[in-house]
Amino acid sequence: MERLFVIKIGGSVIDNEQQLSLFLSNFSTIKDKKILVHGGGKLATRLAEQLNIPQQVVNGRRITNAETLKIITMVYAGYINKNIVAQLQAINCNAIGLSGADGDFVLAHKRIYSGTDYGFVGDVDRINTELLIDLLKKNISVVASPVTHDGKGQLLNTNADTIASSIAIAMSKQFNIRLIYCFEKKGILEEVEDENSVIPLITRETYRQLVNDKKLFDGILPKIENAFTAIDSGVREVLIGDANNLLQNVTAETKGTLIK
Amino acid sequence: MERLFVIKIGGSVIDNEQQLSLFLSNFSTIKDKKILVHGGGKLATRLAEQLNIPQQVVNGRRITNAETLKIITMVYAGYINKNIVAQLQAINCNAIGLSGADGDFVLAHKRIYSGTDYGFVGDVDRINTELLIDLLKKNISVVASPVTHDGKGQLLNTNADTIASSIAIAMSKQFNIRLIYCFEKKGILEEVEDENSVIPLITRETYRQLVNDKKLFDGILPKIENAFTAIDSGVREVLIGDANNLLQNVTAETKGTLIK
Repeated sequence: MERLFVIKIGGSVIDNEQQLSLFLSNFSTIKDKKILVHGGGKLATRLAEQLNIPQQVVNGRRITNAETLKIITMVYAGYINKNIVAQLQAINCNAIGLSGADGDFVLAHKRIYSGTDYGFVGDVDRINTELLIDLLKKNISVVASPVTHDGKGQLLNTNADTIASSIAIAMSKQFNIRLIYCFEKKGILEEVEDENSVIPLITRETYRQLVNDKKLFDGILPKIENAFTAIDSGVREVLIGDANNLLQNVTAETKGTLIK
Repeated sequence: MERLFVIKIGGSVIDNEQQLSLFLSNFSTIKDKKILVHGGGKLATRLAEQLNIPQQVVNGRRITNAETLKIITMVYAGYINKNIVAQLQAINCNAIGLSGADGDFVLAHKRIYSGTDYGFVGDVDRINTELLIDLLKKNISVVASPVTHDGKGQLLNTNADTIASSIAIAMSKQFNIRLIYCFEKKGILEEVEDENSVIPLITRETYRQLVNDKKLFDGILPKIENAFTAIDSGVREVLIGDANNLLQNVTAETKGTLIK
């Protein structure tokens, strides 16, 4: 099977102009087919502040009301997405930026809550793999923003990690998928304070051991659980680590943490 | 040759939720292949005001500085474009929203001025017809925002009328093009105050006569000149009129002003 990279970057890369530029340069050198999923960064929060739109946070999660959704659509699907695409075009990497509404790329439904209503948040129902395959065949890389739609005219704010894993899973029947989550650390660390303690490989067995030994900090557990869910659903391997450190050697020796 | 509609809507439709919804509903009923080009509307100006970004206007034209370009990218390529696409999906019209950077759709260059520098304004160099044809063949309608790129990583603010005519001209070798400019009047009026004085047909000869007789108000002359330029470059016909009035009968009897 042909290889397909699905790479997710978050705020730590997006907010730093130099890091983003280096990342996109590394991304463009990947010879295999590739999809980039980007999150948000600080720009949306800053814009909400400037516009005096109060950001409500309940249980550590932000509520996406209509005004916040508007900002997310402007910043994520507009400003960030189009600037990434323009930068890729400049380095001879043909790319197309898509929200979930474009070509019915990511269909989602508004999440239903029993308690607090978190607003216009979408859970993914279906990825339009036909559209992706058509574009990738023409050597157009897809740049996905974390905005989906419900098929009834409503845009929805959707977690970029989830979009990345949904794409990876949906495409795993046709491609040998490497799903890469970029974050601010070099990988999953055995000692949170020590950047040199990257765990190179995590399997089900070593994961159980690490959890039992309480070696992993709580924040990283959902990322690893998500990785195993993707693998159980057909994704070949998941790589977690620092964007540029990973991509500089993306086809050579693996840096970061490989989950298999 | 197969027929292709290239339809441009501006602020008067975009700013009115009900009118936009009616327009999109009419647009979705067009059985032929179709491309929608949208302008801006008041939202960008309002956002600039809210963010205290002064809008500099020289000789009646707005200067697109870096901050204004950011707003235009957020509002036009993000908010307006994605909401139009989501609304079209809801009425079973598969559509994809593109800025000029997406798939290298519209390549432009920054306009060079001898006097005042109007900033990040782009003049169109090339339309990627291959991408358009591929999408249209899959029955995906294209929704184009008035943001282009220069191939060097710079996004540019570009007049939506010009994008529409550039697309129409570029596609005229493969398609029988009907280029439609929607504006707030029912057509080109013989008496500016009288909505019932629509001139049904303007040809080179009648145009010369109308200009000699000073029957046309100055503001409409550039639109008609642009229409003739498009026709000289291969576009079959240009229709000017009120969005919904025109589209309700788009395949039947022509309303509005037909320029041939």
